[in-house]
Order: sequence, then structure tokens, then C-alpha cells
Amino acid sequence: MHSLILGGARSGKSALAERLAQASGRAVTYVATGQAGDGEMAERIAHHRARRPPGWDCVEEPLALAATLRAHAAADRCLLVDCLTLWLGNLLGDADTGRFEREREALLALLPGLPGQVLFVSNEVGLGIVPMGALTRRFVDEAGRLHQALAQHCDRVVFVAAGLPLVLKGRID
Amino acid sequence: MHSLILGGARSGKSALAERLAQASGRAVTYVATGQAGDGEMAERIAHHRARRPPGWDCVEEPLALAATLRAHAAADRCLLVDCLTLWLGNLLGDADTGRFEREREALLALLPGLPGQVLFVSNEVGLGIVPMGALTRRFVDEAGRLHQALAQHCDRVVFVAAGLPLVLKGRID
Amino acid sequence: MHSLILGGARSGKSALAERLAQASGRAVTYVATGQAGDGEMAERIAHHRARRPPGWDCVEEPLALAATLRAHAAADRCLLVDCLTLWLGNLLGDADTGRFEREREALLALLPGLPGQVLFVSNEVGLGIVPMGALTRRFVDEAGRLHQALAQHCDRVVFVAAGLPLVLKGRID
Repeated sequence: MHSLILGGARSGKSALAERLAQASGRAVTYVATGQAGDGEMAERIAHHRARRPPGWDCVEEPLALAATLRAHAAADRCLLVDCLTLWLGNLLGDADTGRFEREREALLALLPGLPGQVLFVSNEVGLGIVPMGALTRRFVDEAGRLHQALAQHCDRVVFVAAGLPLVLKGRID
Repeated sequence: MHSLILGGARSGKSALAERLAQASGRAVTYVATGQAGDGEMAERIAHHRARRPPGWDCVEEPLALAATLRAHAAADRCLLVDCLTLWLGNLLGDADTGRFEREREALLALLPGLPGQVLFVSNEVGLGIVPMGALTRRFVDEAGRLHQALAQHCDRVVFVAAGLPLVLKGRID
Repeated sequence: MHSLILGGARSGKSALAERLAQASGRAVTYVATGQAGDGEMAERIAHHRARRPPGWDCVEEPLALAATLRAHAAADRCLLVDCLTLWLGNLLGDADTGRFEREREALLALLPGLPGQVLFVSNEVGLGIVPMGALTRRFVDEAGRLHQALAQHCDRVVFVAAGLPLVLKGRID
């Protein structure tokens, strides 16, 4: 039972994922993909950390997501990945230009056999005008393709707006 | 019974809010937050005004929204606020840098006890790529947070696309 | 029975429209509006072409959409227009500044009496921040207005995210 939680900036998607993790009744590992590179990002990370229940484990991994999920997954565990958007940005900015494709394929190949539950949080970024820069356009395209591919491997896909869930696939009990 | 009507640019959200105001059976006060600063905005305001039924009252208030709602609310009245996005932009651009927080808190504190009905129209702006400028990022973040907070105080939340409503909370009769 | 398929960049909207065209049981004419002006667009067009079933007819028309639909429509035929966004961009960039209005009115006037089935694919572009340039703002506004007007003439309107359909009007069998 894996889930993809999509939404815009400050749509409440992380908070919904955290409620679903709590409601899973499993031990939770929070997988943070953000890197505290500047003051604003450090602040966002601190904001998310303050909201997390104290009993949750936390691992930080900006790039090797599939390996991290493989290492921590267990039948009685829920992994909350927040978020795919930062992971995608980290990989597209990596000096190793082929790494994104390898990491994406590893993630998609891993999911079907992974024990336990994974909750992926990701930003919907493709509903504004097509951006000017080729790199940003690639980012938007890869995010859209990734969401389509992941949605096929997930039992539940939810779009969040104003903190309210809109179920695209599966159900929220 | 308060409502939040979200949608993109030219999604039909104002027209939906106007239909809901008409259908409420109450006297309607249209609360305009836009300021006719340049030719383009003046044209948009004229376009909205031409569509409004002649029997509606209209007040213009770019900043002090809570005080305006408090002054005009009544059990038999529907207040249509169009739109929160312009109000937010006016406040974030105000020389008094603390005013936005004060106005937001006043609005959220006022709503639960307000008589009658309020319809808030607002733009969903967080579904494109994260913008470069810090001020624009703040605008997107504050809009998202405001929608989440208001949605908790509203009985009805609707997302509008292509003029068609998608109910996120409550119902449209 | 006409349909409007809306979605963001790489949301899976073209793939959904192609499935609906296949499921219609009719002969299919693919109406391509894109112009292979640079390498990136040529690549996108090749990507779409590779996915199309070999039995489909294909016509390319960047501007005169209504005349093209009138010429190819038949009771036993499904016309798949991919996409309105490129058509709108072509028209707004045309040297004949009144052409967009004329083409749009011709399209809206044609639809109610057109035999067979038309599937329109279009990008939702109005859910990010309001762009700076006046031309881009006009593009966003005209796209939103066009979607509202077309949605009234369509029996089915679907919003696509992560490859998953969200029905705004009508139904997907």
C-alpha cells in the first residue's frame, strides 16, 4: 500500500501525509530529501521538523532515495518521503548528468516488491505557464512524468488543495 | 455558512460565487478588494462590475477586510469578497510590514461568530513552478496558508476549473 | 458528444485523450496544432507521433481549426485535437491581430452542429502566479476563457493529474 500525495505550495500536502502516516498504525520513518543550503530552506526544514511527532525516526537523503527506502522498509513500517520535488531538483542539478535516470529507474523498479508502506509527497508544478528556461521546463516535464509513473505503482493518489484531499485513486478511510 | 471558492485565472470562480450569492436568497453586498491602479486592472474591475446584478450593494476595501465584514454582516445578508488574492497582494505590499499578520488574524478570529453568509473568492497560485523572487515566493506561501486556514472555517470549499465546480468540502445544492 | 481534456504539463492528458479516442470505436483523425519550429518542439511532436496507432489519419493545422474540423468531421469519426494551447499560442502570435477572435468564434459556433465526436486536449496554465508580461497574461486569460466557453459546448470535461482522470462534467465509461 503505497501513496502519492500531490499538491501545490503550502497546500497542506505534508500535513495530510503526516496524518496518513499516523493513521497507518505503523512505526514511521521520515525520509527528508531537502538540503539546508540557505536560510530560507533551513527555516522550512525546521518548520517541518517541529511538527513531526517525537517518536518518528528521521533519515536525510538528498539523492539515493531507492537505496534509502530499501534499507529502511519493513512490513510494520511506514516511510514518509517529503518530498520528491526536492529530490528531483537535487538530481537534475547533480554533476553526474545520468544519475537522475538511474535513480528514477531504481525507485520505480523497487516499489512493487517493497514491504510495508511508503507515502510520497510531491509538488504539482505543471499547472502554471510553461517556464522560459530549458532547465526549468525539463524539471516540470520530469516531475509530471515521475508522477504518472509513480501513480501506476501506488494504490492511493491524492491531490490536496486548501488542506483538503481530493482522491484521484484508491481511498482515504 | 461561509464558502471559499478557489480557482485559477479566468477559471469562472467569480461567476460561480455570483451564482451562489444569487441562490442564497439573501441581500448581497459585493466587497471589492482591487484597486484600479492601472489601465489593465481598471478594465478588469469594469468587466466584473458590468456583470453584477443592479440590486447588489458594493463596498471597496483593499486592506481592512475584517472590519468591513464586521460592519456589513447581517443574518439576512450575503457578503461576496472578490478577491482574497488582491487583498493579500495589497497587504504584502503595504508600508506597514506587520499589517498583513494583523489583518489575517482579525479575519480568522471574526469568521466563526459572523452572522449571515460570506463567499470568499481566491486564486489558486501555488501549482506552477516555485517563483524566483523572495517576495513572490512569500505571496504564494501566504496564499496557500490562508486558504488552508480559511477552509477550516468554511462549510463549503469549491475548486473551479473551466467554469465547473469541484467540491472539496460541503456541497452545492 | 464532445470532450475537453485539461491538465498540466506531462499530466497524461494526451494519453487519456488517445485512450478515449480508441474507446470511441470510431475512425480517428488526429489534428496536430503544433509547429516544429525548433529542436525541442520537433522532439515533442515525434514523441507524440510514435505513440499514435498506425491506423489513425493525421492532419496538421496550426491556425484554421474550425475549418479543419468542419472538413474532417463525420458521424462515424472521432477528431482528436492536440492541443488547444499551441493553437492559441499560434493565433496570439499571428501578425493578423484580429484572427484569434475570429477563429475562436468560428470554433464555438461550429461545435453544436458538428457530427461525430471531438476530443480537445488543452493545458491548464492559470494555476501558477500571474506572470509579469502582458502578452503572457493575455495568453493565460484567453486560455481560461476558452476553456470555460468550450466546457459549455462539451458533454464531458476531464481534469488529468498524474495520469489519472478527474471528471468535472459528464462521465468516463
